[in-house]
Amino acid sequence: MTDANMRVTVLAGGVGGAKLSHGVSMLPDVDLSVIVNTGDDLELHGLAISPDVDTVLYTLAGLANAETGWGLRDETWSAHEMLGRYGAPTWFRLGDRDIATHLVRTSRLAAGATPTEVTRELAAALGLGARVLPMADRPVRTRIRIATGWLELQAWFVGRRHADDALEIRFDGVDDARPTAAVLDAVRSADVIALAPSNPFISIGTILALPGMVPALLGAGAPVVGVSPIVAGAAIKGPADRMFETLGGEASALGVARHYATRYPGLLDGLVVDVADAAHVPAIERLGMAAMATTTVMHHDIDRRRLAEDTLAFARDLVASAGTATPRVDPVAGDRGAPAKSGA
Amino acid sequence: MTDANMRVTVLAGGVGGAKLSHGVSMLPDVDLSVIVNTGDDLELHGLAISPDVDTVLYTLAGLANAETGWGLRDETWSAHEMLGRYGAPTWFRLGDRDIATHLVRTSRLAAGATPTEVTRELAAALGLGARVLPMADRPVRTRIRIATGWLELQAWFVGRRHADDALEIRFDGVDDARPTAAVLDAVRSADVIALAPSNPFISIGTILALPGMVPALLGAGAPVVGVSPIVAGAAIKGPADRMFETLGGEASALGVARHYATRYPGLLDGLVVDVADAAHVPAIERLGMAAMATTTVMHHDIDRRRLAEDTLAFARDLVASAGTATPRVDPVAGDRGAPAKSGA
Repeated sequence: MTDANMRVTVLAGGVGGAKLSHGVSMLPDVDLSVIVNTGDDLELHGLAISPDVDTVLYTLAGLANAETGWGLRDETWSAHEMLGRYGAPTWFRLGDRDIATHLVRTSRLAAGATPTEVTRELAAALGLGARVLPMADRPVRTRIRIATGWLELQAWFVGRRHADDALEIRFDGVDDARPTAAVLDAVRSADVIALAPSNPFISIGTILALPGMVPALLGAGAPVVGVSPIVAGAAIKGPADRMFETLGGEASALGVARHYATRYPGLLDGLVVDVADAAHVPAIERLGMAAMATTTVMHHDIDRRRLAEDTLAFARDLVASAGTATPRVDPVAGDRGAPAKSGA
Repeated sequence: MTDANMRVTVLAGGVGGAKLSHGVSMLPDVDLSVIVNTGDDLELHGLAISPDVDTVLYTLAGLANAETGWGLRDETWSAHEMLGRYGAPTWFRLGDRDIATHLVRTSRLAAGATPTEVTRELAAALGLGARVLPMADRPVRTRIRIATGWLELQAWFVGRRHADDALEIRFDGVDDARPTAAVLDAVRSADVIALAPSNPFISIGTILALPGMVPALLGAGAPVVGVSPIVAGAAIKGPADRMFETLGGEASALGVARHYATRYPGLLDGLVVDVADAAHVPAIERLGMAAMATTTVMHHDIDRRRLAEDTLAFARDLVASAGTATPRVDPVAGDRGAPAKSGA
């Protein structure tokens, strides 16, 4: 790393990604960019809602609602109640303060701003130093096939509390979408790239499904490290564990490593797993990536910061052990994970 | 009048019109239609806002905010506060519950519903028995010229608290707008038509500016009675008194009568004025309409009901004294006010 600010780029979904990003943002001398999944976006009551982007914004701003795990703290629910009175759909709860975000986004988009521009404006208004970057400016919509057919992601995730087995995933619109220029710049200029402990299928997987995204990551000069969202065989939050069962793979830290190693060969230089999964480290390393066990569950702000520190130190060690300055490997080479593996 | 429900049609702006309409709705055996000014409508944060329609809806539903004089009771302001944080315009305050109304309206309009349909849906959801009818389905936008130029109505009314003299009024879009079929039906089928104590220039005047509206009222079989919004030389609420000064006329009950008699000859069969203006009755009658003095200021629900009763009784007397059943005059004749005048 250089003596200047360490440039850290996090790929993130909602809560887990937001927490790790928040941890990184708390560190001194770090310049943070967060590339956020937009496949969860939806339109409701005419509002353009971008749940993962907002979770990242609110969390970085210290405004996230710790009780609900989504939305804003000190929230009120007057509009929600009134919407119910009008017979409008209320399965996706929108707090009053949260609605303000959606109103601003919707009207700015209608005025011709891009999601990237709107998010930059929202982040600036919230006083954020970090760059929060929607993965794409064109719409991508994640769909989940359950036994009875295809559902929009939020209809499954929130509307049915992801109770049905996810049998298949598709990302509508992804072929026409591209990582934004800001996203590609955040990848290219990063000193460390972290895949947050977000859902590998419908958070990180959505970002990685963008045409050009994996090649950009493979070609970046920075080490790419992931944090396992599976701890002791279960997802910290959400349906990631059950999705491994129904979509293939194993709900374990090793399963996460295999998932990335198989689907995105050479992408991950290292994986951070929870201390509960320390026994998986050797098997993970045999897959061709480094591995490190630490406490990954983030109950409090201090946990976020510590996991961020540990993850960045792990990535720094990968670079050091590779014995090169960044970019330490030929960006064209497919086996960039190898030096890290041998050094772990 | 028939023994069946008395069909009462009120032309209304915001608060004054809503209160009188509410009073009518409290009476037994009355079938109420309220034709509401939409010239005050605006778009803000991408929301389609129809302030007078909403004031009528909320008031009839018993949900109006008595303290503010607009919006909903038990309101919260979380979205407003957050909009301010985002630097969005906050000069037009939107409560959280109120925003739900605008969200429903906006999304229904975007789905192709007409303002009339949306308002019917909102009224049904609020459990209203009355028909609340936007005056037109096509947009009409009232503009006010002040010394420095033209302003949108709400920019003047709310944004500048109507502090500037109104020098001229125009109704953008009115030439392309028409009274809706529901409005014309409410006029044609009415047993009594009442012009609420709303602003004669920018509430009632807007409705009357619709092509075909005055002929429809002149051709209706029902007596048309107004309630003066000016009491003892001052407007109960809003800028009506000052508008008489700057736009021509006199801010008095007699001035109101002259305004209608001059601009809409034959329209008003009678005018209800406040007891404070009882001395104006003879002069008003000399203009060719009946006049009656009663308490018109509506502090409480009971005042609304009593004014409604008095106004309907006044109208009923006009019909009786004309010695005919409704329709008591040839709907084609232009001098339908005459029998009422002679009988007053």
